[in-house]
Amino acid sequence: MKKSTSEINVRYGETDQMGVVYHVNYLVWFEIGRTDFIETLGLRYAAMEEDGFLSPVVDAKLNFHYPVRYGEKPIVETWLQSYDGIRTMYRYEIKNEAGKLCVSGTSTHTVVKKETFRPVSIRRSLPEWHAAYSKAMEA
Amino acid sequence: MKKSTSEINVRYGETDQMGVVYHVNYLVWFEIGRTDFIETLGLRYAAMEEDGFLSPVVDAKLNFHYPVRYGEKPIVETWLQSYDGIRTMYRYEIKNEAGKLCVSGTSTHTVVKKETFRPVSIRRSLPEWHAAYSKAMEA
Amino acid sequence: MKKSTSEINVRYGETDQMGVVYHVNYLVWFEIGRTDFIETLGLRYAAMEEDGFLSPVVDAKLNFHYPVRYGEKPIVETWLQSYDGIRTMYRYEIKNEAGKLCVSGTSTHTVVKKETFRPVSIRRSLPEWHAAYSKAMEA
Amino acid sequence: MKKSTSEINVRYGETDQMGVVYHVNYLVWFEIGRTDFIETLGLRYAAMEEDGFLSPVVDAKLNFHYPVRYGEKPIVETWLQSYDGIRTMYRYEIKNEAGKLCVSGTSTHTVVKKETFRPVSIRRSLPEWHAAYSKAMEA
Repeated sequence: MKKSTSEINVRYGETDQMGVVYHVNYLVWFEIGRTDFIETLGLRYAAMEEDGFLSPVVDAKLNFHYPVRYGEKPIVETWLQSYDGIRTMYRYEIKNEAGKLCVSGTSTHTVVKKETFRPVSIRRSLPEWHAAYSKAMEA
Repeated sequence: MKKSTSEINVRYGETDQMGVVYHVNYLVWFEIGRTDFIETLGLRYAAMEEDGFLSPVVDAKLNFHYPVRYGEKPIVETWLQSYDGIRTMYRYEIKNEAGKLCVSGTSTHTVVKKETFRPVSIRRSLPEWHAAYSKAMEA
Repeated sequence: MKKSTSEINVRYGETDQMGVVYHVNYLVWFEIGRTDFIETLGLRYAAMEEDGFLSPVVDAKLNFHYPVRYGEKPIVETWLQSYDGIRTMYRYEIKNEAGKLCVSGTSTHTVVKKETFRPVSIRRSLPEWHAAYSKAMEA
Repeated sequence: MKKSTSEINVRYGETDQMGVVYHVNYLVWFEIGRTDFIETLGLRYAAMEEDGFLSPVVDAKLNFHYPVRYGEKPIVETWLQSYDGIRTMYRYEIKNEAGKLCVSGTSTHTVVKKETFRPVSIRRSLPEWHAAYSKAMEA
């Protein structure tokens, strides 16, 4: 299974007064993981937008197991949970340096036309993406 | 059923280059809703922290139905989905001015000691909160 | 002198592990002040964008005098420091409930065409805005 | 002159509906530059906090010359503008891949006791930091 690993540089402003990373920021880190995962497939999200498409989030789930702190060097592991030619679901695991699972979750995405926000078939509209995602699912 | 309604002042920086609110910010708005809901129960989250407790997020789920745009005046409706003396689950619905459901979701929270992050029983450690939440569930 | 007053609802995620509001967020609050100030002139920033213009920031200065904490109810006071038909400089003062000055600063803005980012004369391209700003400076 | 260079991974959520990076985020990038600069001196900001000190921002100035876009790989160059044993002023330049200056600015910092927010002399309280900063100024 294709899996990407992204190193996160914890930003000071990502902490809150609990003294740990503010929970909302882990959803930003999921996106960092997703962007890197896409690059391991040989694709670039920025290029998709330049071609007139957007990939909005349909749903997201987060499970918070253990806090990440400023000064730590966490990673996000990202892989494909499902893909059907229309919807893509990614799975994420954020781990600290000791390898402890801190946050896990998923997000589901469609692809839409930039101008109209109308959903498109990835299979038909973005065949290069479809090929890469299909292959990643097989692996 | 007790329900709070929070008006959101969409901040320019909450949009992204899709031209709509960046999906992560809705999770921030859930917290605005939760804070207001707590106040409708006659309680204050800041006071809980002053008393030496924190209420971390255990899990969160978001469903994105329709985008909110800058210049709109969305609301967050918040209510209690479940409460068992230890865990509290809130439910959120973000609607635009036209009443259209834009984002829905839930989040689950425990209460821990500030110093140790050890979970406590809300029933025993915060009887005033327990009474208010139990009553809100009955309603 | 025309001056607007904006109440800020401090968000939990705006704090950092120092236990106070993360300094960067005051620049976001300046924008809340600016948006409200524009509305006291009978104008709407969102409307300017709908008309094909943007108002980027040219420079910003912040002086941090005293921290704002979660649970407080700060205000932003905003007024016009200078306006010459092309550039607009706003002045901001953030005060806590006790009236203590916490953060002060300025920001300077131009107006550009949305499509090209080319600067325009507010006087010529947005006569309604020019009239309101000129009047606010006189006051 | 000692100078650090930090590569910035532009995050999607850092853009706004102007289609470029939201101006406030450059102040976050300044902090990334500052943290890296401190590490080039052989020090760690996280370690200062563990020792019971904080380094709050006294003032910040930003000049916005040219927008950074998503998909670009900007850098922050950071160096010491002044240091007198009590206050430290850093200077920042954010450049895009083509080497074009996008944002420049400064920030000034003191060091305070974590418990009391009372200012301390870096020279006396943090001699290792004083030595490194004095040497960086000489260079």
